[in-house]
Amino acid sequence: MKKSEDFSEWYNDVIDRAGLCDKRYPVKGMNIWTPYGWKLMLLIDRLFREEFDRTGHSEVCFPLLIPEDQFAKEKEHIKGFDEQVYWVTHAGANPLDIKLCLRPTSETAIYPIFKLWVRSHADLPLKIYQIVDVFRYETKQTRAFMRVREIHFFESHTCHADFNGAEDQMKQNLEIMERLARKLCLPYIAAIRPEWDKFAGAHYSIGIDSAMPSGRTLQIGGIHQYKDNFAKPFEITYEDEKGNQSHVHQTTFGMSERLVGAIVAIHGDDGGVMLPPAVAPFQVVIVPVLAKGQQEKIEEECGKVRDELAAAGLRVHLDSRDMRPGNKYYDWELKGVPLRIELGKKDMDEDAVMAVRRDNREKSKLPRKELAAKVENILLAIETDLYRRADAEMNGKIGEIGSLAELKNISGILRVHWCGLEECGRKIEQEADASLLGTPVPERNEKSKCIACGKESEKVALVARTY
Amino acid sequence: MKKSEDFSEWYNDVIDRAGLCDKRYPVKGMNIWTPYGWKLMLLIDRLFREEFDRTGHSEVCFPLLIPEDQFAKEKEHIKGFDEQVYWVTHAGANPLDIKLCLRPTSETAIYPIFKLWVRSHADLPLKIYQIVDVFRYETKQTRAFMRVREIHFFESHTCHADFNGAEDQMKQNLEIMERLARKLCLPYIAAIRPEWDKFAGAHYSIGIDSAMPSGRTLQIGGIHQYKDNFAKPFEITYEDEKGNQSHVHQTTFGMSERLVGAIVAIHGDDGGVMLPPAVAPFQVVIVPVLAKGQQEKIEEECGKVRDELAAAGLRVHLDSRDMRPGNKYYDWELKGVPLRIELGKKDMDEDAVMAVRRDNREKSKLPRKELAAKVENILLAIETDLYRRADAEMNGKIGEIGSLAELKNISGILRVHWCGLEECGRKIEQEADASLLGTPVPERNEKSKCIACGKESEKVALVARTY
Repeated sequence: MKKSEDFSEWYNDVIDRAGLCDKRYPVKGMNIWTPYGWKLMLLIDRLFREEFDRTGHSEVCFPLLIPEDQFAKEKEHIKGFDEQVYWVTHAGANPLDIKLCLRPTSETAIYPIFKLWVRSHADLPLKIYQIVDVFRYETKQTRAFMRVREIHFFESHTCHADFNGAEDQMKQNLEIMERLARKLCLPYIAAIRPEWDKFAGAHYSIGIDSAMPSGRTLQIGGIHQYKDNFAKPFEITYEDEKGNQSHVHQTTFGMSERLVGAIVAIHGDDGGVMLPPAVAPFQVVIVPVLAKGQQEKIEEECGKVRDELAAAGLRVHLDSRDMRPGNKYYDWELKGVPLRIELGKKDMDEDAVMAVRRDNREKSKLPRKELAAKVENILLAIETDLYRRADAEMNGKIGEIGSLAELKNISGILRVHWCGLEECGRKIEQEADASLLGTPVPERNEKSKCIACGKESEKVALVARTY
Repeated sequence: MKKSEDFSEWYNDVIDRAGLCDKRYPVKGMNIWTPYGWKLMLLIDRLFREEFDRTGHSEVCFPLLIPEDQFAKEKEHIKGFDEQVYWVTHAGANPLDIKLCLRPTSETAIYPIFKLWVRSHADLPLKIYQIVDVFRYETKQTRAFMRVREIHFFESHTCHADFNGAEDQMKQNLEIMERLARKLCLPYIAAIRPEWDKFAGAHYSIGIDSAMPSGRTLQIGGIHQYKDNFAKPFEITYEDEKGNQSHVHQTTFGMSERLVGAIVAIHGDDGGVMLPPAVAPFQVVIVPVLAKGQQEKIEEECGKVRDELAAAGLRVHLDSRDMRPGNKYYDWELKGVPLRIELGKKDMDEDAVMAVRRDNREKSKLPRKELAAKVENILLAIETDLYRRADAEMNGKIGEIGSLAELKNISGILRVHWCGLEECGRKIEQEADASLLGTPVPERNEKSKCIACGKESEKVALVARTY
């Protein structure tokens, strides 16, 4: 299956062959995390924890089940999720007194408790996050990691004294996103979503979109300014220095296993997946190239190399299976290990190893001395190159058009001028048979005319077909 | 609230005051993991991962929801859990075609997939584990960590070629339990449960019980031999070397957040909780004892100590709050930090720090040189002492009786002789108003008479009131 010929088939196939998940679970949209895929996900979770811990967030874990009355408190929010929630109605054979829904996101689970946790200005800012599964009864076609019904999810929730405090958090969230994206080698576009596509209940939403090889975009994150939209129905107030009660202003940041989907889709090739060094379950695989009469010596040397790299903190695997080296190369390329080390008699004689990069298949002979430092450098180079290549690809997909007529059969991401009116936005979406991703952040102002109504406008919007 | 006066009240209270969870979530038996409690739980999870990874298990993650027909496949199993499961019946406003239950445990989610994963003897043993929440509609009184309805859960599942292979795994599971118990400072009794109290569907079960200060026991783990009881209904078979199809034999190992409950209950005192060094979110807290005109110097030195200990891999916190040292001591004792370091002018002059153990409040002056190694030694000593003290306490609760008449108003764990017949076992349970925990592992054979029927018997059984 060639990626360039049928991206969708290739994507489904490569996930199976690399062993990232098992799709044979008998409930639609719910897949099994296999050992390899789960390790990858846990390493991404670790990145989340590192970033959010060091920016002053505390990890918590709230219950899965939300009582119906609590779920219904914020009107826009419930409208957005009502059709997607799973309801628990019975325990054993008995009906429950009050129905419980499986969280589709945790605002309505957390905010009644924020009301208890926030009392005075000294409690602010309150910044928490959790890594949990959320459940959404998706009606669109499901696809591993990209659109599933049980979603491995990251969500941060913050409370601030006022709108500006929440705005500062929005900026920090964008900075966190940028650092994560570099580690995950995922270039993206941040865009303020149009009113009609913001998160249910938000004041405004910034969507984080990556460009897929198919020409569509995939939203891989959402950063939301809630203002006091939730604080009011959930009565989250604090006493300020002067003794007045005010509502807090809130933000959230959501990401999910879609990051795995984006990594597979963007970096994979016909040889398999290609994992960013920061989250690859194995960063290095060592393959012994055995020669007659030298087996033991070579295997021993491979063991030493493994121990050296492991001692340096690298995730390394020595493949000692009784199998031809070529077959092992094939396996580990499929699984996307960033760097392969081959070690045979000739290498031993030269006191060196052969290193082969997964991304560009470049080979280099590395002297054994201080090997770990050299390997670390190559892994950093792979990280940079993966990001750069994907960034160039994404930029190559961004086009600019000046009239409605050019919107037919679009592929990739189009920059258009838009006056900001919903009527014009909807018209653009309809003509393009695509979505208005919104106004890019940071904004680049330039005078031009709305392609729908012709009115002078400084606003630029992005249009793309989305997953 | 004194632990010795009202254990139950003390337990509920100390959890609140130490900030291990928030019980104000509006669904009964579902609590909120606060940052401190969650860190503790995640560190226990890390111990699980270390132990099970290095014994050849792979971590996976299966879906939460189990279709009704799949859940009903093993008859004993469903009987055991039928009244306890939560049922999802609707998505949005629409009824589901097939009801889905929230896993109360994952046999019926995993085994249809094991059927696909196991084909030949080369696939065996298959050893996996997962750390997930399970849901049980408990009808008994709920209690934080000890009896909740959303349970943070560990479960390993293994498949073997034959009964002996599974028996070897049972032994390994007991070894893993022993290593975990040392780290968690939780002495325990392993006992083969009587037939009528084994895990639903198991061939036999080993319960892991800890003795609580109240005189009751708390089951903190379960190790189960399934034989081919599940392999048959779920059709998990493999082709052996000779080309014959056989059913696999299986084991499981379950543990949960009850470990947190046991740690709090066993080690806590009137001053608060007392956490084992291996899983304490902070192993060391540093409290500056400021003196006039020396503030800056002392704070700087405290920072250096923190950095040194952190560099050695210790979890350390410098408490720089503007507050009297005594109040800080009180706080961190309540939260159970194993070691406190005080650092004031006098200590600086002597190039030393004062170290105070949480468990026995022993103070020692430690010269600054090579401080990290000294701190590590003290933490190891605390670990050993916590385990020993609890072990002595548990053994003090084990008594021996020779007749049914002595079974009235029992407290602690009683050793009795029992012929092994259900009739006699039930009689003992009834007379004692307590449970037969089962036959201890390893078994200690000694000739005597069943206290119920008087028949000669080598069997010893343990009796206790349980949570």
